[in-house]
Amino acid sequence: MSATSRRKWGKMAAVIEVIGFDADDTLWHSEMLYLRVQQEFQALLAPYCGDDGVLDELYETEMGNLPYYGYGIKGFTLSMIETAIRITGGEIGAQKIQQIIELAKEMRRAPVDLLPHVAEVVPALSESYRLILITKGDLFDQEAKIANSGLAACFDHVEIVTDKTPDVYRRLLAKHRIDPHCFLMVGDSLRSDISPVVSLGACAVHIPYPITWAHEAAPVQGDEASGYVELEHVGLLPDFIGGLGRSGTGD
Amino acid sequence: MSATSRRKWGKMAAVIEVIGFDADDTLWHSEMLYLRVQQEFQALLAPYCGDDGVLDELYETEMGNLPYYGYGIKGFTLSMIETAIRITGGEIGAQKIQQIIELAKEMRRAPVDLLPHVAEVVPALSESYRLILITKGDLFDQEAKIANSGLAACFDHVEIVTDKTPDVYRRLLAKHRIDPHCFLMVGDSLRSDISPVVSLGACAVHIPYPITWAHEAAPVQGDEASGYVELEHVGLLPDFIGGLGRSGTGD
Repeated sequence: MSATSRRKWGKMAAVIEVIGFDADDTLWHSEMLYLRVQQEFQALLAPYCGDDGVLDELYETEMGNLPYYGYGIKGFTLSMIETAIRITGGEIGAQKIQQIIELAKEMRRAPVDLLPHVAEVVPALSESYRLILITKGDLFDQEAKIANSGLAACFDHVEIVTDKTPDVYRRLLAKHRIDPHCFLMVGDSLRSDISPVVSLGACAVHIPYPITWAHEAAPVQGDEASGYVELEHVGLLPDFIGGLGRSGTGD
Repeated sequence: MSATSRRKWGKMAAVIEVIGFDADDTLWHSEMLYLRVQQEFQALLAPYCGDDGVLDELYETEMGNLPYYGYGIKGFTLSMIETAIRITGGEIGAQKIQQIIELAKEMRRAPVDLLPHVAEVVPALSESYRLILITKGDLFDQEAKIANSGLAACFDHVEIVTDKTPDVYRRLLAKHRIDPHCFLMVGDSLRSDISPVVSLGACAVHIPYPITWAHEAAPVQGDEASGYVELEHVGLLPDFIGGLGRSGTGD
């Protein structure tokens, strides 16, 4: 982090009032679950076409289907079925397709698995800051996960959106009367959590998740690259914000 | 309508400040589209099992899958695929399953088809009342329909929820600081739009749609039966509310 961006952060931290949290892979594991299902999908198709290229084909289908399905388990499942039919040249049997549907149901049944430190840090921060959960994806999936996470009461508001663009964040901040300069966003995706927020003049803390879906791995360029910092895990967040606050006061 | 409930309405209408609108089959056609796709689904399966019982089997699958998928096109499609596999004993070919997926994409591409009078009445009411759109279903489907309806600007708030229970309405009214006695809900579903709202002490106008999904056709019983009225179409709404207002003032 450059001296300039450090100072900028110091000034900003003194006035941070609201913290936005992404959900999937920031508060709880998600991509790991998709990865496991992808491996089962690959194994299921191995008799037809080996391992090669199956996941690339699936990714291509998912991208082509985003305008139809958006994000979430159900769209992912329909894309798996479509990919299976295409790459087997229609040879795949109905029972295997039923197995793909069962994978989707297993995903929905999977318990919410919080990331380390989240269960302590989020409730603690909620005592000093207004917290907002801002998550992208399927309303039904996300509501169930929030309800099962044990964290719902920590958040003043929960916003489930179909995409996380600068315009979506701008409208959310306006709706809740939040000055972007008083807002800090925490998330694992440069594309969805960091870049759009920094472009509005707000701060962001990037906490990378070990696995990133290719679609979310957009590089952050230009000015936006200096407006955020990276932390290793959520456990470092309270000290980091506290340190910035002190630095800001003494600036 | 009894004289008692007429008077009750008269008193209430004098203070109605906020009107909630359901979306599917209240503002625009939806069930018609599902019906058309169900007919195509039936035709697609006819070579395997005739027409008999296909739609009953589909409905049964949909109900069993509600806890996994919630409402919306994607869940409906996964239920069609599952039903097709089950009732053909796994004999259905992959190409037919791909055709089911294409039906889903056609549904998503279908233009938003407003019901008669909606295009005039909703903007007109928005000049005198706060309007809120309260719709159940898939976030992605619903946002797209609202954006394409040309009506988005008429609504102060849009609330997309996974279910419409009394508790969901109670929380929405609290969130927007709306007194239930100042709230009128308009919708086509007794189960989702009328009964839960009336149970909170608010008013409701039921505008039946020619086709009702079996799941939404719950009868309204007991006290709740007297707290709403039925109108034939949205075009009658402004005069109805106006008439109630006058009646209320002179009561």
